[in-house]
Amino acid sequence: METDTITAISTPMGEGAIAIVRLSGPEAVSISNELFQGKDLSKADSHTMHYGKIIDPETNEVAEEVMVSIMRAPKTFTREDVVEINCHGGLVSVNRVLEIVLAKGARLAEPGEFTKRAFLNGRIDLSQAEAVMDLIRAKTDRAMNVALKQMDGRLSKLIQSLRQKLLETLAHVEVNIDYPEYDDVEEMSHNMMEEKTKEVLEEVKKLLQTAQQGKILREGLATAIIGRPNVGKSSLMNALVHENKAIVTEVPGTTRDVIEEYVNVRGVPLRLVDTAGIRETEDIVERIGVEKSRQVLKEADLILLVLNYGDELTAEDEKLFEAVRDLDVIVIVNKTDLEPQLDMERVQTLADKHPVITTALLHEKGIDELEQAISQVFFEGELDTGDMTYVSNVRHVQLLKQAKQALEDALNGMEMDMPIDMVQIDVTRTWEILGEIVGDTVHESLIDQLFSQFCLGK
Amino acid sequence: METDTITAISTPMGEGAIAIVRLSGPEAVSISNELFQGKDLSKADSHTMHYGKIIDPETNEVAEEVMVSIMRAPKTFTREDVVEINCHGGLVSVNRVLEIVLAKGARLAEPGEFTKRAFLNGRIDLSQAEAVMDLIRAKTDRAMNVALKQMDGRLSKLIQSLRQKLLETLAHVEVNIDYPEYDDVEEMSHNMMEEKTKEVLEEVKKLLQTAQQGKILREGLATAIIGRPNVGKSSLMNALVHENKAIVTEVPGTTRDVIEEYVNVRGVPLRLVDTAGIRETEDIVERIGVEKSRQVLKEADLILLVLNYGDELTAEDEKLFEAVRDLDVIVIVNKTDLEPQLDMERVQTLADKHPVITTALLHEKGIDELEQAISQVFFEGELDTGDMTYVSNVRHVQLLKQAKQALEDALNGMEMDMPIDMVQIDVTRTWEILGEIVGDTVHESLIDQLFSQFCLGK
Repeated sequence: METDTITAISTPMGEGAIAIVRLSGPEAVSISNELFQGKDLSKADSHTMHYGKIIDPETNEVAEEVMVSIMRAPKTFTREDVVEINCHGGLVSVNRVLEIVLAKGARLAEPGEFTKRAFLNGRIDLSQAEAVMDLIRAKTDRAMNVALKQMDGRLSKLIQSLRQKLLETLAHVEVNIDYPEYDDVEEMSHNMMEEKTKEVLEEVKKLLQTAQQGKILREGLATAIIGRPNVGKSSLMNALVHENKAIVTEVPGTTRDVIEEYVNVRGVPLRLVDTAGIRETEDIVERIGVEKSRQVLKEADLILLVLNYGDELTAEDEKLFEAVRDLDVIVIVNKTDLEPQLDMERVQTLADKHPVITTALLHEKGIDELEQAISQVFFEGELDTGDMTYVSNVRHVQLLKQAKQALEDALNGMEMDMPIDMVQIDVTRTWEILGEIVGDTVHESLIDQLFSQFCLGK
Repeated sequence: METDTITAISTPMGEGAIAIVRLSGPEAVSISNELFQGKDLSKADSHTMHYGKIIDPETNEVAEEVMVSIMRAPKTFTREDVVEINCHGGLVSVNRVLEIVLAKGARLAEPGEFTKRAFLNGRIDLSQAEAVMDLIRAKTDRAMNVALKQMDGRLSKLIQSLRQKLLETLAHVEVNIDYPEYDDVEEMSHNMMEEKTKEVLEEVKKLLQTAQQGKILREGLATAIIGRPNVGKSSLMNALVHENKAIVTEVPGTTRDVIEEYVNVRGVPLRLVDTAGIRETEDIVERIGVEKSRQVLKEADLILLVLNYGDELTAEDEKLFEAVRDLDVIVIVNKTDLEPQLDMERVQTLADKHPVITTALLHEKGIDELEQAISQVFFEGELDTGDMTYVSNVRHVQLLKQAKQALEDALNGMEMDMPIDMVQIDVTRTWEILGEIVGDTVHESLIDQLFSQFCLGK
């Protein structure tokens, strides 16, 4: 258990009205009190706010006008004493307060260290901690709902109930092995083990089925727009961006890092490949031919293939169809306001099972239908996050796949009439793997690595 | 007086650990209470924090896990009831909470509206309100100190004392005019008026003398690096950026807006002209000749003219000296590690009164001396913000210049023996002009315009 006092700026970097320097640990209140002019914070009640000034110990001058919140253990985010110093939102201002706090003996928190303490002190489990970060990074309301539910412990409860089921089964079998007074003991153990293993396997499979959607909600769909020159690719990009106001730009670290754009289409976050990227994709298709472009396209989750209604289908169009045959594609026949030249029957044949949408993007026609199609491709028309527990985290998906494998190994073993203690090994392994999701059986190095992906100050 | 309840996101936009939705107004507590699940906020004491959940009234589902701070009038930033809802720091999350608050009847605050209310409700005067924004935008500690002192009312007190002096003088003269029983009344009035007017004029002049430094502290020095190709302009740029960690990037509005870079050199914020700009300046000097480039260079506050120690002085170098003759220039003789070819005597002659610094930037030599020189050019070696009241705001400078003019008009009038009531007009005008600085005699439209420059949520 760590016992030093950590601190960090907990608001996003940038100009704003309020910025917060947060402290957590046994010295949080006493450090704050040393710097604070206004009243004696050491006597302040928990969950109270105090107006005053931060004094720079070097110059004895006022460094900031602040509002200090005192929250005493254990009813805090970290279960330790927590102090939040609310400053005016300038970068210089909040950095100066941070420096003074550091000078007085607090240690700069590592990314995610506040949440890590909440986990280590037992306030939340690992999957809840991970949900905190997912919540912060959520691109749409739906993604946020998934994270909120996971943070609330929904996934944890399900996982723990599966583990409990396995544990009870193992205990039961163990007892039967130890007291083999009855003839049918082995059969009973076998039957129970098989039944419970199958039940857990079903649940694990169900969770894995949500993983694809969960991942999309969490990370967004990498979306590529392709088509010959002048079919309306830019118009499509613009239509998606303009129709959906909830554009979220992500700026990890500093403004110099890559900016990604998300367009929220009916709850589906599309991660639009930037214009340069689109041009590149186009160039690749045009220049290096179908074979290599196929590789590039495979990295996209969704491909919007645009055709020109006012133009005949070219060999190039056919090549594009060829390139995306087995991928998730929506075919967009654009410029339906022009004289029809396109062989729509041939397009339908080429599109096969993929949806074909007609649009006149410059006249703002067909956009609704397109958005409906995008939503349907991934959520079959409806997505009720209220009723389902989604798995959206790559780590969780990996562990669930391992659990599935271990459960199948156990079932195979039983079918092959292997001794029950051999089967027990696989079931115990499943129990451990599921424990890694909630953090019960997880290694310290993994924990460190997980929390290091958090943002600073959380 | 406005009486509705306003709300806005008060933390910078971006991913962070904490984001705040702030409310101010008579309904702040009741609106928050309607959305909040956890306890009855209407009964909460002032300056207390409460853990709970925000419920979406449309779906009745949990929308966020929050910490709500209740601050009751009048001891708040706006002197109204203020509620701060601390959410998890995601963009989607904080926007959702804002939407719910808006749906319950709060109005989206205009930029600066919280601070405007603090002003309208008499908690701070106009120059203090302006200092709040300067504090947020401060690029260096020194700039922040100036803003802090202004926010603390230091400038306000000085201005008010000058106004008081003028008012007392006017009152005194008025009384003398009304009771002209004594022979020497007119002379007494004249002498007193002259004496006091001179005193105030001296103070106004002193304040104006701080304006140049104040402006630099506030806005940064527009700095251009010029020199022939290959003298080390990029190395200089890099050295300044790398030596001074406190780089501040400013992103007004969204990440798409222009990004400006500030390098904090010993408390002097240099606003570096971006690389493209430098190249342009160079091109202009090279291509369009001295006459036109002079115009371009005049827009810079500081010019760093770089020469190559290992090369003879060229006609081009001489032209550059010519172009910057009357500007603030530091001459940098770079590459002192090379065989000397430069005629240093000639350089000293050309540099005239401007400092000449020798560096070997690639070997990290001379950077300290350069920084010292930059600091000296603008602050003559020392800048003790502790002892001075700086005027840093363009609006204040304009008003002080007007006040100076009005006071000089009054003094001229007295010298020309104009009737005392004519002089009174100029003195009264001075009193009004100074009142505009603190907001006593300012028009509503100006107030609206001033606060609209604030950031949202402040």
